[in-house]
Amino acid sequence: MQAEERRSSSQGAPIRVAVVGATGYTGAELLRLLLGHREVRVTAVCGHSKAGRPVSEVLPSLSGLLDAEFAAFDADAIAEVAELAFCALPHGASAPTVAALRERGLRVFDLSADFRLRDPAVYAEWYGEHGAPGLFGEAVYGLVELYREALVGASLVAVPGCYPTATLLAAAPLLREGLIETDRILVDAKSGVSGAGRKAGGATHLPEAAEGIRAYKVGGAHRHTAEIEQEMGALAGSAVRICFTPHLVPMTRGILATVYAPLRAGTSVSRCVEAARALYRGSPSVAVLEAGRCPDTLWVRGSNRAHISYVIDERAGMLIAQGAIDNLLKGAAGQAIQCMNVALGLPEAEGIGGAGAWP
Amino acid sequence: MQAEERRSSSQGAPIRVAVVGATGYTGAELLRLLLGHREVRVTAVCGHSKAGRPVSEVLPSLSGLLDAEFAAFDADAIAEVAELAFCALPHGASAPTVAALRERGLRVFDLSADFRLRDPAVYAEWYGEHGAPGLFGEAVYGLVELYREALVGASLVAVPGCYPTATLLAAAPLLREGLIETDRILVDAKSGVSGAGRKAGGATHLPEAAEGIRAYKVGGAHRHTAEIEQEMGALAGSAVRICFTPHLVPMTRGILATVYAPLRAGTSVSRCVEAARALYRGSPSVAVLEAGRCPDTLWVRGSNRAHISYVIDERAGMLIAQGAIDNLLKGAAGQAIQCMNVALGLPEAEGIGGAGAWP
Amino acid sequence: MQAEERRSSSQGAPIRVAVVGATGYTGAELLRLLLGHREVRVTAVCGHSKAGRPVSEVLPSLSGLLDAEFAAFDADAIAEVAELAFCALPHGASAPTVAALRERGLRVFDLSADFRLRDPAVYAEWYGEHGAPGLFGEAVYGLVELYREALVGASLVAVPGCYPTATLLAAAPLLREGLIETDRILVDAKSGVSGAGRKAGGATHLPEAAEGIRAYKVGGAHRHTAEIEQEMGALAGSAVRICFTPHLVPMTRGILATVYAPLRAGTSVSRCVEAARALYRGSPSVAVLEAGRCPDTLWVRGSNRAHISYVIDERAGMLIAQGAIDNLLKGAAGQAIQCMNVALGLPEAEGIGGAGAWP
Amino acid sequence: MQAEERRSSSQGAPIRVAVVGATGYTGAELLRLLLGHREVRVTAVCGHSKAGRPVSEVLPSLSGLLDAEFAAFDADAIAEVAELAFCALPHGASAPTVAALRERGLRVFDLSADFRLRDPAVYAEWYGEHGAPGLFGEAVYGLVELYREALVGASLVAVPGCYPTATLLAAAPLLREGLIETDRILVDAKSGVSGAGRKAGGATHLPEAAEGIRAYKVGGAHRHTAEIEQEMGALAGSAVRICFTPHLVPMTRGILATVYAPLRAGTSVSRCVEAARALYRGSPSVAVLEAGRCPDTLWVRGSNRAHISYVIDERAGMLIAQGAIDNLLKGAAGQAIQCMNVALGLPEAEGIGGAGAWP
Repeated sequence: MQAEERRSSSQGAPIRVAVVGATGYTGAELLRLLLGHREVRVTAVCGHSKAGRPVSEVLPSLSGLLDAEFAAFDADAIAEVAELAFCALPHGASAPTVAALRERGLRVFDLSADFRLRDPAVYAEWYGEHGAPGLFGEAVYGLVELYREALVGASLVAVPGCYPTATLLAAAPLLREGLIETDRILVDAKSGVSGAGRKAGGATHLPEAAEGIRAYKVGGAHRHTAEIEQEMGALAGSAVRICFTPHLVPMTRGILATVYAPLRAGTSVSRCVEAARALYRGSPSVAVLEAGRCPDTLWVRGSNRAHISYVIDERAGMLIAQGAIDNLLKGAAGQAIQCMNVALGLPEAEGIGGAGAWP
Repeated sequence: MQAEERRSSSQGAPIRVAVVGATGYTGAELLRLLLGHREVRVTAVCGHSKAGRPVSEVLPSLSGLLDAEFAAFDADAIAEVAELAFCALPHGASAPTVAALRERGLRVFDLSADFRLRDPAVYAEWYGEHGAPGLFGEAVYGLVELYREALVGASLVAVPGCYPTATLLAAAPLLREGLIETDRILVDAKSGVSGAGRKAGGATHLPEAAEGIRAYKVGGAHRHTAEIEQEMGALAGSAVRICFTPHLVPMTRGILATVYAPLRAGTSVSRCVEAARALYRGSPSVAVLEAGRCPDTLWVRGSNRAHISYVIDERAGMLIAQGAIDNLLKGAAGQAIQCMNVALGLPEAEGIGGAGAWP
Repeated sequence: MQAEERRSSSQGAPIRVAVVGATGYTGAELLRLLLGHREVRVTAVCGHSKAGRPVSEVLPSLSGLLDAEFAAFDADAIAEVAELAFCALPHGASAPTVAALRERGLRVFDLSADFRLRDPAVYAEWYGEHGAPGLFGEAVYGLVELYREALVGASLVAVPGCYPTATLLAAAPLLREGLIETDRILVDAKSGVSGAGRKAGGATHLPEAAEGIRAYKVGGAHRHTAEIEQEMGALAGSAVRICFTPHLVPMTRGILATVYAPLRAGTSVSRCVEAARALYRGSPSVAVLEAGRCPDTLWVRGSNRAHISYVIDERAGMLIAQGAIDNLLKGAAGQAIQCMNVALGLPEAEGIGGAGAWP
Repeated sequence: MQAEERRSSSQGAPIRVAVVGATGYTGAELLRLLLGHREVRVTAVCGHSKAGRPVSEVLPSLSGLLDAEFAAFDADAIAEVAELAFCALPHGASAPTVAALRERGLRVFDLSADFRLRDPAVYAEWYGEHGAPGLFGEAVYGLVELYREALVGASLVAVPGCYPTATLLAAAPLLREGLIETDRILVDAKSGVSGAGRKAGGATHLPEAAEGIRAYKVGGAHRHTAEIEQEMGALAGSAVRICFTPHLVPMTRGILATVYAPLRAGTSVSRCVEAARALYRGSPSVAVLEAGRCPDTLWVRGSNRAHISYVIDERAGMLIAQGAIDNLLKGAAGQAIQCMNVALGLPEAEGIGGAGAWP
């Protein structure tokens, strides 16, 4: 009855892993997941701002589970104890760190935006100057369900953004199969507040964030637009422009991407569901919901899973595709480990295969 | 019945008001607001399911403020003590009740959907058989900002739905001034859970509703679609079809309508803002935000106010208009009282003019 | 300055009021309530950190309702336009500001802790050096229900803290009537996050505050302990020591104080309820719930009301008294205006008499 | 750096497990955890009210992870496919079900209250007639940290209640070491709403539960009182009476028990912390926090962990002990599996050893 047997384990020594930028929410999730992963061993935990402080003081959910201190970043020291690193730093700051680790031979999974784009001009337009131009273009884009083969053996992986992951998983089957028009795609996305990171500010102060919803970076200003357009264009085979509007929702975790696209003739919900099931066959992290059911971010909270759905609005001639993920897991830390599993030839779901703690 | 007589400032006797269907959230808000209104006196409180029970037991926030019991509905009894009634009943059940009160000469403000549509065929398509066909078409649509003149002296008012109010206030200036294309309007709306009413169910049970967001009635299935299309068509001067998708947000109150429409040539944000300010000049319940600012439902929580904004996505050629309201106030009870004020020639903001308790 | 002149019902000119320290949550509530108060006119709005910025930018719920800018504090300028001031500054900073305003003849309602204590040694122990020792002891403690007579005509009022208000309203009838033992009183209090103020920080960052509950300042470390003990002692007629433990609850507003005290022989719930009803007869802000009912902070959210209740645990020989308030209203801004009303001989409930927007 | 090596796995066939009463929140958690447990295989999933429906329809977080349907309860059918069962039924209904499974030789872990008490008179007083008197007294009380030895090989285990778990883990070291007086112990407990179960009702309807806190079953009326007193008495060596007051907190998961007890002479915080560390040495699910730190339920959310702390209020002569758990895990499903692990001689933390997904 239980789908997948989980007893097997490899014979070899554990892979020694460093986590750089581990003081935030993504770092906390990386550490949690790696502690439960059977093939790795965390050997370095770096966090500039908390160097010297016990991990459990900064990340209290790890009290009693990880007896370690944060270290300042030191590429040489890391190279001595680890063969693989996760970088959870802000864009800009990440590129030189990644470069330093790559120079020392480490396999790197970068959770920043620095290596997600393939066109340097697009990077420059949205992010400015790149911090390691020599590495630009070297990374594999880590949306496992679309780039699984390219990821095998990869030594530099750009883990996708949270909004792109939710959006692309829902839209990919449609674009690949030509089920929608591509000139008027609109993405109205909703995110929990943890997507804004751990740094406190007015917009995330509970009294001002807990009982309201609002849009932000309206008008095509959010940087994930470029990443979504790049991958949609690759799937469609021609350039795609979208209208992308993110909203901040009064909850901690979760992204729901509601994707609207004009229908092409002949498209039905069942064709969409079939296309998605075909594309995601063998993908342990994606569930295509039964026709008639739409995802709730709560259903994937705490898991590395994506739930996707398709509905047609016949009156308006629109297809509504939805993708729901946990922004810190399938949208960040979980997906990074999924990339690692694939890159190393481990079972794809190792350490990240379960359901979330619902409700 | 009202424990404490408020200092009345008009010369005349207070208007005697009945609230029918007062046991739910809209009823609670109607009673709260009417108790603070200087020109009225609540003389009857009806609630079928709670007949005989003290109001303060069912609506605990009124403890010590309203010493009354719920009565079963009795049109003759109401007609003896009231000259005006608010009906906060479900559609279908409302029409015959409204008819009974109208027959006895009461002025009626109906918060159900029964009298909002003008085309009986459209009503039949979305709601089925009408409960008082003789009255169909007699009501004034109570979106005060658009129908202020028609409301003066009105004896039957159909108070608009919550989604239509938030959507139309944002879209009306654009449609009136021809600033957008009307063939591809899309409304992605987000509502707090109180919009689902007081009846408990799985979808609103806190553990399953507090930490997730989800769409519902996706694909053009929500009945408010008809009401929005009717009013958009009236504003545009030709039939309008929209794609309307509501979402349930983990918070109690608030609706944010994000309206997307293709730009017409020459449209700028400042023209939109000017058009809105011109339309809403003298409207005490609407604030058009400064360009660059987008509304948060928290800013209008607990008030009868609407905040609206306009942003252009140049890359995508789209205008993004947003309207935020408190669904129980400007989306229901507050707007009903605003309608009453206009109908009776009272100051429009009497009893509903203040800010909400922020944060 | 107030956009719209409210119909004033008194004969005299409106009282000209300044609000000092108006950029935070208490300031927002003071402005909201004063805008709806028929006998006052806000003539000065001071906020050091936001001087020169429009009020509606900093307090967005006032958009379209108050067309004014924050000014830096200037006692002379205030004295020219106002005869009365509310000070919503932190303790320590408040005393010299209050002193400057008193010197210029203004009646002052101070919401800080600076004038609440009557014993300078106790102040020094809990807060350190006082900023205006010459005024120490001059203020009336503004718990209206207990000090109504002393407040009439008062020119300096110390508005009580939020925890003391909730606690004392529940405990006062018991202490006055000798219904409990006073040597083992324990107060377990629960507060919404807005009690921590508007300044963002880790403990109030939504992702770390929205789904957990925790105690803080455990072990008798919270400064409100001194204030509660002072007033309990006055009521009991002898010194009282309490064990006071506050908790932070994942919600914006509300305080629930659960007060435990050993029963005295002969005490029954009905005697407690009667004692409370006798004490609070004529008090428009307090509702003593029916025996068997316990308060929910949601029931008083957005109002200046307190709900109190009494239950006996026969097995344990304990009385459990509970008081629920909105910390920003009856625990701060609302109570300040209640004090002003009494001090000036206005109706006690003017501007603060209604229910909150439930739910 | 990683405390515990997790590669080892047993050679034998997996243990075949049934979950009875699996449609609620505890059932969802049992299934989630068992799917990730390396030594078991779920072979039967029973849920009376949902018999015949796919598990993933009722428990949507399991979509794509468990392809099974709910079955009606049938003891013979279960006995054919399982050797061990978890029962997550309401008290009263549970006892005969447990009896039927025991008669067929299954090892049973019962999550109801039916087998937690040792004195039939106490059971009768709090719960009424027992549904399987022949089994009464046969169960081991499954608070692993206190009954580890008795649990080895146990065939009937009464998994403790959520409030007792949080309370007893905090209080046990104090009672065992005589660090507190036992005649005036008071427990003020705070629970998330999932503790009320999956059945929707007014008190758990999001609009009425999301922004308020309230006590319930005040005055010694909550049934967990009996369980706490039984175990406290066993630890103290003499009968204990407590004053226990639970509160409902606006969040989904988590229990914080704040335990107040009069200090005994000579007790210090460091002695308490030492006593707790000594008692919980080798217990993988308990972390005794550093002196000065108090637990937040968020820190244990989604995990089988308990965080406990000790603070002294010198002024009041009170010790304040706190215990925080996730009510659905260490307070229910997680603890049940912990009991199973110990009973079967498996590693105690297998399947339940990780941190929760914070924040």
